Amino acid sequence: MARDARPQARLPAGFVDVTAADARARAAAIDVVTATYRAHGFEPLETPAIEYLDALGKHLPDVDAPDQGVFALRDDDDRWLALRYDLTAPLARYVAQHRQHLPNPFRRYQVGPVWRREKPGPGRFRQFVQCDFDTVGSANLAVDAEACALLGRALETLGIAPSEYEVRVNDRKVLSGVLARSGVTEPDAQLDVLRAIDKLDRLGSDGVRALLGEGRRDRSGDYTSGAGLSDDQADVVMAFVGAGGPDRAEVLAALDDLVGDDETGRRGIEELTAIAEGLDAMGVGPQVVFDPGIVRGLAYYTGPVFEAVLTSETLDEKGRPRQFGTVAAGGRYDDLITRFTGQDVPACGGSVGIDRLLAALRDRGAAPEVPGPVVVTAMDRDRMTDYHAMAAELRAAGIAAEVYLGTQNLQKQMRYADRRSSPAVVIAGGDEFAAGTVQVKDLALGTERAREVSDRDEWRADRPAQRTVPRADLVATVAEVLAGS
Amino acid sequence: MARDARPQARLPAGFVDVTAADARARAAAIDVVTATYRAHGFEPLETPAIEYLDALGKHLPDVDAPDQGVFALRDDDDRWLALRYDLTAPLARYVAQHRQHLPNPFRRYQVGPVWRREKPGPGRFRQFVQCDFDTVGSANLAVDAEACALLGRALETLGIAPSEYEVRVNDRKVLSGVLARSGVTEPDAQLDVLRAIDKLDRLGSDGVRALLGEGRRDRSGDYTSGAGLSDDQADVVMAFVGAGGPDRAEVLAALDDLVGDDETGRRGIEELTAIAEGLDAMGVGPQVVFDPGIVRGLAYYTGPVFEAVLTSETLDEKGRPRQFGTVAAGGRYDDLITRFTGQDVPACGGSVGIDRLLAALRDRGAAPEVPGPVVVTAMDRDRMTDYHAMAAELRAAGIAAEVYLGTQNLQKQMRYADRRSSPAVVIAGGDEFAAGTVQVKDLALGTERAREVSDRDEWRADRPAQRTVPRADLVATVAEVLAGS
Repeated sequence: MARDARPQARLPAGFVDVTAADARARAAAIDVVTATYRAHGFEPLETPAIEYLDALGKHLPDVDAPDQGVFALRDDDDRWLALRYDLTAPLARYVAQHRQHLPNPFRRYQVGPVWRREKPGPGRFRQFVQCDFDTVGSANLAVDAEACALLGRALETLGIAPSEYEVRVNDRKVLSGVLARSGVTEPDAQLDVLRAIDKLDRLGSDGVRALLGEGRRDRSGDYTSGAGLSDDQADVVMAFVGAGGPDRAEVLAALDDLVGDDETGRRGIEELTAIAEGLDAMGVGPQVVFDPGIVRGLAYYTGPVFEAVLTSETLDEKGRPRQFGTVAAGGRYDDLITRFTGQDVPACGGSVGIDRLLAALRDRGAAPEVPGPVVVTAMDRDRMTDYHAMAAELRAAGIAAEVYLGTQNLQKQMRYADRRSSPAVVIAGGDEFAAGTVQVKDLALGTERAREVSDRDEWRADRPAQRTVPRADLVATVAEVLAGS
Repeated sequence: MARDARPQARLPAGFVDVTAADARARAAAIDVVTATYRAHGFEPLETPAIEYLDALGKHLPDVDAPDQGVFALRDDDDRWLALRYDLTAPLARYVAQHRQHLPNPFRRYQVGPVWRREKPGPGRFRQFVQCDFDTVGSANLAVDAEACALLGRALETLGIAPSEYEVRVNDRKVLSGVLARSGVTEPDAQLDVLRAIDKLDRLGSDGVRALLGEGRRDRSGDYTSGAGLSDDQADVVMAFVGAGGPDRAEVLAALDDLVGDDETGRRGIEELTAIAEGLDAMGVGPQVVFDPGIVRGLAYYTGPVFEAVLTSETLDEKGRPRQFGTVAAGGRYDDLITRFTGQDVPACGGSVGIDRLLAALRDRGAAPEVPGPVVVTAMDRDRMTDYHAMAAELRAAGIAAEVYLGTQNLQKQMRYADRRSSPAVVIAGGDEFAAGTVQVKDLALGTERAREVSDRDEWRADRPAQRTVPRADLVATVAEVLAGS
């Protein structure tokens, strides 16, 4: 093959490979989070990755991204398809399609990758895993309270204490009321304000303030136009955004004053009051707070919105404090199914961002090391039957094991076991077979020396971490080594 | 919203939603299959769904499909991206990119959806889940033998007995040798022959025979051009394809005769002989057979290929015998990494088609019913704290439970529990709270009557399946009901 005809072995920007340790940690986290969802009565659903673009709708916050932030392509009949950008829009399509056959409310969870055609950057990926639960068909605000509590429970099952996270709750209707009182009544203008506030985490007060007014040029030179608010209007919004506090009842009272008699605003206050009652009924403590600065960027939320943040500081590889921002979020979207059927179908749900959570847990050092398989070395091609029998016995005892199936070079076999983080290696050659024994090498004890070994005789001198035992004691001996490592 | 502006709630052809029972069965199957892979020393890897098209290469058997059978789209910099069509091509890219940091051999497994832009049809989906394991970096044919055995083990862990499946093994070099002896030496012509043979299952002998010669028009009128073999050449191929049998050594001897002294053919015989030795060393019985009719459509296989089929007949919904065809497959692909780096990296692996397997298992009636959550009915809004406490106690005892969070109508709450297949419902109103009791309704016993109940008093008359117990006995009583259902 000509040199220049060779494809490059690389991934497009924004995509990553997840290797063994991270893949195991992710699978374990998904297991406990979905178990929590199931314990609360949610059942699994798996929609496909590809949908019709018009069925997904345009709800992403990144209006400035190409193709409205989705990966789209044309089907054979020239209709637009797209990779899902979240798990909520496909749920809306599913419910609209099958509602008459579903229990009401319909409570489902779904775990899977979603794709966003965003500008890739540090910590911003174009494929990431979401872990969602939703209750469709109930307008009862107790559902929203349950969703906030459940996001917290999910974090707790992952080992995060209630003192280490906060679920911040707001109601867009409250902001809408505040805006209406200031003369900002157009839905599009209100949405621009929402999106500006949603960037508080990333841009800080000054950045948001700029986006509420004229607009803002970022460091790369890209310009984002603003919501066009006057200075007075922007002042009101910034004051509102800062009205949060640790006591739910106190914040409610403060917001009550701010919305005055605006009708939409009052409905927002009623909703937050109902959520407060629901949280109290579930005995949810101060880890769920009301925070007017929370708006969520997605266009489909209609009232209550919430997000979970880790409040305990973690340190990155260089020992600097790291902000993880939002690790879970959700809200109520009462119109998302209406757009298909015309029928009102109230809905509310939450989503855990597994990958961001795992990054946080990794910094806390919570992920345990998982040992590799026991390696049965194969030095004698005529003894493969015996080697396979050893591996099979180990597996039957619940111990992962493999016969080395590369070359016959023992040094390479030992290096392999080392790189696999194998806890033990089994060695049997002519002498052992003649004596009816096997050698079991404890790699946790002997790793350092194993790296230097150059032939089998030197190996044998390396006694402390190595035992010769009767063949019949193989499994028991390996189990002992594993228990000790 | 205007009526005609509404999107349709439907999926593109070839895509399906997987609902609760099937999603649970799939997750359970993936759990046991991947546990088998791990027990054999394979570690997890998760590559993203999207890759550069040129990195994936063009290896699909469906040359007649649009876009060579893949879902492709252009990146922002105008390079072609594509959804992976299998898990092997991304593995090749990964290994080419990271080889110096990987153990050798590198043994990984991966589970995930793959996408093929094929003509959708009954049982042919455009997204389906594969469950792969591969050993990269070893030319040892014992790896191929292990792969065949492991595919069998994976089926067995899913409850399929060795007598109910067959792993059929062949070596493309043997066919290549036979073809060369008949004067068919061009690689492209040989590939056309491979692809014709690969359709034996679907098209039968006559269809394959037509594709070996001039070509074939299918029922829909589409024409597939043939490999252009003469009648004599096609005769040899058809004879070869039929040379399989139950005894590995016997088939080997027959193939040995057929290839004569063709060099490539002889290498094929040597490879099959080594695989036979490997299988014998692992004590693999007659469930792994040599079958010259197996070629596999993917272009990247270089020698040994194998596929697992279910031999026990299953019946479809209408009681007709159903053929499931291939439920797992694999082979050796020694050149797939070479195309990136120029270095020879031998590799071999297998893939279990989880969805097809599950369809087969469903017909065997193997999937157990999973009960829904216990539903704590909520009739009194002032007692939400009590209802939530009941659900929390049940969950703490490992019982999935939810407080009904829709309307207050008891009939609707009961209908909901029924549709969720709830094993039990908890009822508490003013009387129960006054008496310090709760009612526990056994739905497995009372489902039929529950459907007819119209108000709460009638409910109470329905004693046999319903007990009133002290509040403190709630969890024990529900546990008893669950144990009995």
